[in-house]
Amino acid sequence: MQSFTDIQALVFDVFGTVVDWRSGVARDASAFLARHAPGADPFAFADAWRLRYSPAMQEVRSGRRPFTRLDVLHRENLEAVLPQFGIDPADVVSSELDALNLAWHSLDPWPDSVPGLARLKRRFIIAPLSNGNIRLMLDMAKRAGLPWDAILGAEVVQAYKPAPEAYLRTAEVLMLKPAQVCLVAAHNGDLAAARQCGLRTAFIPRTTEHGPDQATDLRPESDWDAIAADMEDLAEQLGL
Amino acid sequence: MQSFTDIQALVFDVFGTVVDWRSGVARDASAFLARHAPGADPFAFADAWRLRYSPAMQEVRSGRRPFTRLDVLHRENLEAVLPQFGIDPADVVSSELDALNLAWHSLDPWPDSVPGLARLKRRFIIAPLSNGNIRLMLDMAKRAGLPWDAILGAEVVQAYKPAPEAYLRTAEVLMLKPAQVCLVAAHNGDLAAARQCGLRTAFIPRTTEHGPDQATDLRPESDWDAIAADMEDLAEQLGL
Repeated sequence: MQSFTDIQALVFDVFGTVVDWRSGVARDASAFLARHAPGADPFAFADAWRLRYSPAMQEVRSGRRPFTRLDVLHRENLEAVLPQFGIDPADVVSSELDALNLAWHSLDPWPDSVPGLARLKRRFIIAPLSNGNIRLMLDMAKRAGLPWDAILGAEVVQAYKPAPEAYLRTAEVLMLKPAQVCLVAAHNGDLAAARQCGLRTAFIPRTTEHGPDQATDLRPESDWDAIAADMEDLAEQLGL
Repeated sequence: MQSFTDIQALVFDVFGTVVDWRSGVARDASAFLARHAPGADPFAFADAWRLRYSPAMQEVRSGRRPFTRLDVLHRENLEAVLPQFGIDPADVVSSELDALNLAWHSLDPWPDSVPGLARLKRRFIIAPLSNGNIRLMLDMAKRAGLPWDAILGAEVVQAYKPAPEAYLRTAEVLMLKPAQVCLVAAHNGDLAAARQCGLRTAFIPRTTEHGPDQATDLRPESDWDAIAADMEDLAEQLGL
């Protein structure tokens, strides 16, 4: 890993790369669905909710909507997804939806994430560069023991990935050149956008992020600066 | 501490309250002065540098200058203070001043800070609400082991204390009402500004922050919600 000698900070995609959002959301949706849509598949619910994630942020990225934190977008998307499962939003009390919306704050890390991050933290600044908002990332880290040095990401820089500002302003608040920052992600598209901005890139496959039939991001699609099996392997490759 | 039951986050003033800026800056200034102004008092240098802190931020608070991170203000103030010690800024290479400016990133905590914060973290979200910028707070925390849940403060909210926006926007990114947030500080003025915004307040005296002849903030000047001898006593009072 000769190429990593100038790198001072590792920033991480979180949903999918550090934590397993699909299982976590399905877990919390399960009790909700048992009450409101018996027989509905909690994993299908998680997938349907997540499917509205990127289009909602696109409203912000396009400039049609001012920056709005992800918790608000998730909450709107939740109401939008209910009818797909035969649930009338008017039949559910608001506080119950607020509680379900917090599923995203309570996601479990992949088994290698916490030990891998702890090792990487010895040499590098480590921080999330997620589209999740500050409080979401904070609650998740506190519950799961993710040892971040700071909570960075979309809300700090007021821009959603893959907009270039999300990467460039994050390097800027770290007072680093883009080439001194490496994005760690399980998504080729995220890494491509980061590389376009001059950041270094590390790919970790998460082949069950979308469940057993996942068809995307099964392998690296470019010559990323590092390619590791998981966070612990990344630490290993970097001599930590 | 009946009144603390609704509080979810403790946010901390840092310079003076969590760390001993005067000794730390004097330590790093000492070698610099030995080279450029033999015989000069490093503590007097630290005091003179710090004296320019508030006026520099006032330029931002007043709107005369766009938000500028503290590292930049510190660096400008450093050049301004050199002639007071008989040093011509033109005689010092820029990289040496850059290095001295990092003294603020390497301040030591008071002895009770790390153990106290670790205890408070068990029940509360803990984060700096400092005028220091993100990278400064991050470097300080990583070096000293300050166990913050997130790095908040002036750069995140683009406002310098005691402007109301600094407190109100910090509560807002935490998705809390001001009354659910408590500022912990050694400075009565900071606490008064926070209370004005609806935050709760905790005072910890740091009677040697300004050296042995300190005349200000020796005691609480109002009925703050908590008054503790140090961070560990605050944890004790809160049953942690």
